[in-house]
Amino acid sequence: EVTLSGDARMGVTNNTDSGDTEFSSRARVKFTMSGETDGGLSFGASFRAHEAGDANGNTEMSSGSVFMSGAFGTITMGNVAGAAEAAVGDLSGVGYTGLGDFSDTVFLTGDGAEGEPIVQYAYTAGDLSVYVSTSDGAQVENYALGVGYKMGDYNFGLGYESSSNAFGAPDGATHLVASVGGTFGAISAKAVYGKADVSGLDADQYGLSATYTADALAVTGFYKVVDTSALPGPFGKTTATGIGASYDLGGGAAVKGGVVNVDFGPVDDSVYDLGVTFSF
Amino acid sequence: EVTLSGDARMGVTNNTDSGDTEFSSRARVKFTMSGETDGGLSFGASFRAHEAGDANGNTEMSSGSVFMSGAFGTITMGNVAGAAEAAVGDLSGVGYTGLGDFSDTVFLTGDGAEGEPIVQYAYTAGDLSVYVSTSDGAQVENYALGVGYKMGDYNFGLGYESSSNAFGAPDGATHLVASVGGTFGAISAKAVYGKADVSGLDADQYGLSATYTADALAVTGFYKVVDTSALPGPFGKTTATGIGASYDLGGGAAVKGGVVNVDFGPVDDSVYDLGVTFSF
Amino acid sequence: EVTLSGDARMGVTNNTDSGDTEFSSRARVKFTMSGETDGGLSFGASFRAHEAGDANGNTEMSSGSVFMSGAFGTITMGNVAGAAEAAVGDLSGVGYTGLGDFSDTVFLTGDGAEGEPIVQYAYTAGDLSVYVSTSDGAQVENYALGVGYKMGDYNFGLGYESSSNAFGAPDGATHLVASVGGTFGAISAKAVYGKADVSGLDADQYGLSATYTADALAVTGFYKVVDTSALPGPFGKTTATGIGASYDLGGGAAVKGGVVNVDFGPVDDSVYDLGVTFSF
Repeated sequence: EVTLSGDARMGVTNNTDSGDTEFSSRARVKFTMSGETDGGLSFGASFRAHEAGDANGNTEMSSGSVFMSGAFGTITMGNVAGAAEAAVGDLSGVGYTGLGDFSDTVFLTGDGAEGEPIVQYAYTAGDLSVYVSTSDGAQVENYALGVGYKMGDYNFGLGYESSSNAFGAPDGATHLVASVGGTFGAISAKAVYGKADVSGLDADQYGLSATYTADALAVTGFYKVVDTSALPGPFGKTTATGIGASYDLGGGAAVKGGVVNVDFGPVDDSVYDLGVTFSF
Repeated sequence: EVTLSGDARMGVTNNTDSGDTEFSSRARVKFTMSGETDGGLSFGASFRAHEAGDANGNTEMSSGSVFMSGAFGTITMGNVAGAAEAAVGDLSGVGYTGLGDFSDTVFLTGDGAEGEPIVQYAYTAGDLSVYVSTSDGAQVENYALGVGYKMGDYNFGLGYESSSNAFGAPDGATHLVASVGGTFGAISAKAVYGKADVSGLDADQYGLSATYTADALAVTGFYKVVDTSALPGPFGKTTATGIGASYDLGGGAAVKGGVVNVDFGPVDDSVYDLGVTFSF
Repeated sequence: EVTLSGDARMGVTNNTDSGDTEFSSRARVKFTMSGETDGGLSFGASFRAHEAGDANGNTEMSSGSVFMSGAFGTITMGNVAGAAEAAVGDLSGVGYTGLGDFSDTVFLTGDGAEGEPIVQYAYTAGDLSVYVSTSDGAQVENYALGVGYKMGDYNFGLGYESSSNAFGAPDGATHLVASVGGTFGAISAKAVYGKADVSGLDADQYGLSATYTADALAVTGFYKVVDTSALPGPFGKTTATGIGASYDLGGGAAVKGGVVNVDFGPVDDSVYDLGVTFSF
């Protein structure tokens, strides 16, 4: 079976090449395929309409994914999250466009980083989830491990990843990253810390996000630092602070807006957006 | 909800690069998304499968559109018609391929002219419709106003539009354009007249189309002049005369064919086509 | 009506640019449109999501197709098989990726060879099918004829095709090609022989494939030679031998793998793959 879903958004933002406030809109459709073998294994695939060419890429598949799952867990190939990303994830972002996604955690592998399919294996037993991912090693040797654990209103993530070609470093890089999240009444919060060894040089990232929800309203704030200033080349320390709000209109529609201040070397800039988002 | 519709056509035409009679066919699918908020606002989006990449363009969205509507009217963002086009529209064309669409009215803004999203606002009260559209002003400053009115079997359209970069003119251009249409028994007809001021130089367009319908048969003729001969550069006076017929086979299928004579400077050429069209 | 279907696969193969064993996966969706006129003619169109742009190509439509059928037969325009291919077809291949499709028969026209729409006419009366196909002659003059016949468990195909630009030959090429197939208990087999006259020089191809089926298991072997060594330029004799197996998991899923040895001039190489395939 093939099913359709979609999303769309429209509004204004100054997060543009020119820095001017511009209209920004998009409409997307996703194909989700699902089936089951006679023996009870589930399988499926998914990609978005605009990714159809990349999803047909075979050894260069760089969008969409294919999976098979059963009692042994789930194995997914394609443009999938690496194991560290699957376990740790991102902070909560703001804005109807994401405003540059500075709340995202930086990972060395997965989610399109390789430009070719990788494999992710996931297994969940009760509150514990474990993840393993790897590239095929033909172009790059990337792999990752991850563990996620839920304990009541709290959740923990731990990931380790290794890449042979991160940041153009001659001896590759490794990355240890962890997260802790929790829900405290109307507030949910998450903290992420990651420390990378980039061919002997240190880089790290850390941040915090929190969302307060009251009926249809949700207010989110985040603070995130990515410090690659020890690396040679065009790298440095990026500090991003964001605040935004979302108001749920029901039926899949919401009004969302946000402001993010980004401080990167000599650049200290603020971007904002305001718009409506729809899911179908 | 996401729904699918489609269209296809096949036949022969000499309206080709070489002027030879060639096979011409195409198949397209359109995604239409729709929803409703708890408060009763309608929203949605649409694009065609081959436009999926452009519909995902954010500040450069150049295909598809996103809308929200309620008692206040309808606001649409993306590749939408400008307000003048929404009010005045085009003459009726001929042929299963459109044969170059010489019956279309030339507008300064909308329908992809900007290569980025514009916004169109529409409000209808009984027989009166008003339209306003604008670009975001970051690259080009384009806007338009339009009014449409229905009176029994007659309809009237009036539009005004302004563009900062039409025809590469240094001081931009403005355009006043009007239409009148009506149905007289088996005949429906429409006339369009437009006059543009292109940085002080005059350009105009005018034309007439009529369609006679008898059961499944419809015969259409049009005459259309676009005179930009006062402008410097590769412009001139284009006169197009077309006649064509369509026979409805039912179920979404029709046989269509047409002939168009195009006179542009030293070129006096005739193009024709004949084919079947399908809608799904 | 527009309906969706899909297919996906994932696994490993060394049939890559580098020759290394790599992950290879893909996910695809197909749109199938169908309708019926009031007079009972069927019509339709189809293309895959990643082909949407090429399916919208008009005189350069190079993917997807449009058809109309009735008592007179079926006429299809677009990226369709030439008449010789429709009658004769390919040998059975191996592997979850096809491993280079060396079991395919080489044809001069159709199936995208022209990069523009061609027309195929097909008519079936009982066990006999006849096919005619042609390009429009504007860029290339290609045409083909084909006949297929079924007799109990046996089937026969015969095709003739002519192309004005095959193999870059100055006076074009013609090709006579035939197939015979049959089912003998658990075994189905097919042989193909083709002989081409390429502007006076001979080229030929021949091969055999057989599949043995036992419940969910199917084992396929093929041997195929394409000998273009009499032609000037980068041509030669290619001998491919393949063996593979498929195990049906039910519900549209299968495990498939194969090995193909390819001998082409100084190159004597083996490629293999192993993966799962899904249809939705």
